Amino acid sequence: MSNSKIDGNWFREADDEWRGYCTSLEIEEILYHEKSDFQDILVFKSVSFGRVLVLDGVIQCTERDEFSYQEMIAHLPLNSHQDPKKVLVVGGGDGGVVREVLKYPTVEEVILCEIDQKVIDVCKKFIPSMAACLNDPRVTVQVGDGIKYLESKKGEFDVIITDAPDPMGPGVVLYEKKFYEELNQALKPKGIICSQGQCLWFDLDTIIKVLKQAKEIFPVYAYASGYTPTYTGGHMGYIICSNDKSVNLKEPIRNFTYEQLDEMKMRYYCPDLHRACFNVLPYFARKELKSILDT
Amino acid sequence: MSNSKIDGNWFREADDEWRGYCTSLEIEEILYHEKSDFQDILVFKSVSFGRVLVLDGVIQCTERDEFSYQEMIAHLPLNSHQDPKKVLVVGGGDGGVVREVLKYPTVEEVILCEIDQKVIDVCKKFIPSMAACLNDPRVTVQVGDGIKYLESKKGEFDVIITDAPDPMGPGVVLYEKKFYEELNQALKPKGIICSQGQCLWFDLDTIIKVLKQAKEIFPVYAYASGYTPTYTGGHMGYIICSNDKSVNLKEPIRNFTYEQLDEMKMRYYCPDLHRACFNVLPYFARKELKSILDT
Repeated sequence: MSNSKIDGNWFREADDEWRGYCTSLEIEEILYHEKSDFQDILVFKSVSFGRVLVLDGVIQCTERDEFSYQEMIAHLPLNSHQDPKKVLVVGGGDGGVVREVLKYPTVEEVILCEIDQKVIDVCKKFIPSMAACLNDPRVTVQVGDGIKYLESKKGEFDVIITDAPDPMGPGVVLYEKKFYEELNQALKPKGIICSQGQCLWFDLDTIIKVLKQAKEIFPVYAYASGYTPTYTGGHMGYIICSNDKSVNLKEPIRNFTYEQLDEMKMRYYCPDLHRACFNVLPYFARKELKSILDT
Repeated sequence: MSNSKIDGNWFREADDEWRGYCTSLEIEEILYHEKSDFQDILVFKSVSFGRVLVLDGVIQCTERDEFSYQEMIAHLPLNSHQDPKKVLVVGGGDGGVVREVLKYPTVEEVILCEIDQKVIDVCKKFIPSMAACLNDPRVTVQVGDGIKYLESKKGEFDVIITDAPDPMGPGVVLYEKKFYEELNQALKPKGIICSQGQCLWFDLDTIIKVLKQAKEIFPVYAYASGYTPTYTGGHMGYIICSNDKSVNLKEPIRNFTYEQLDEMKMRYYCPDLHRACFNVLPYFARKELKSILDT
């Protein structure tokens, strides 16, 4: 659990992971605040970022900037895959990632594996712009432990997206090698995984650890960067891997035009960004990751 | 003046420009806090970001992440110029930009034009990692109004860097067309300017305005992006222009190796980042800027 708190009309996000630094959002109205079997769930209407979902004191998404995260974590792998049909989303009960996955007409089936039914219910009620898509007939919601769910799956998915919380408490296992081995086993040939890849400024040790693990398992892997103001430090990384060495993760397959992007209701992702987002690593991180990424 | 405040042992940065959003840093010790003739100057030792300079309630730099800003605003233009000899830095009394400019052996003369002598004095005393370079024999410190200083200058500088505060109070004029016209007049042939380019998430209207102005004056201009956690939203943009249409701002001239970058004590900038940082515009901004940037 973080040290976050509601301080007057401000939500202040504090945690030892980013000690001495704090992002705060002003609250207009608290819409929901209860403990589920798994975590503390808070939804509030903010003064300038729309509705906000907070789990165990950490901001998960705001209506104003959530698209930057959901689009990156979904379209980087989906638009690197020739023919994605069956997609698994681990975590992400808010529905944002699923909403993006459903934008691909080839996608026939999306399984959302979320441990906390309460998150799904609360988001359907308070943040339908993200969670309404969970009612789509192509979506199956599986409430349960993503790791247990994966154990029984072999060669089933074209793309697996891990919409992981930060590596604290129950989130820790999603950054372990065992989990990446299970992701690999659950992929079809030419499969792609994409996971939340933390902040370069605060979590470089975790990023190095996870990329080293990925390198031991996957022939192709890369680290992309994006901007999301309400995530600590404003930087959010994405770890993307494929089980097929012929897959080029850095070159988008569909060169969507502006008209197509508008039709798809895109706000952050576009093919030119896809090509560039692997190459904006600051030098301090590039040096640390050089032997792993070989860039 | 912002609505920032010291709240117990936290410095909380608040302003109407980013209403309802607040970045805070925990204070270990306040080192200096006085009003100069121009502004409120605060320097504190933070718990996790080293020493911090705050002007009129807005974080200017922290020892932990200042290099990301200083290196981008200096090396993007310097490493796009074949032979930079004479460089003007407008603002930037903390010395961080000058420190980076001096890394080019071709540079013979750097003029720092800072309006507030107190900022220079305070930074020399409390943040020498940035301001000590102002004692370099190649540096001339000119205390005064940058705009007045520029009025009398014609065809003098190879590179001009505007280390501007945000467009509020005395900073407003640094975002006006008149200022860009004066920058243009003060440049030598094949000259390059680079200015602080605000945050895509909070200041898109200002960015559009300034780029439109740049387009009317300069044949070549571009917009680059970087990550600086203690700047609001974590994104910081850079507006870079040349008076010579043959200059390619997006391709670095010196392809520094890792060894060279280490010798230069670089921590953020590197040539691969230079090439990529113009192309990570999120789609929402790319659409707005398309007609101006033609990307």
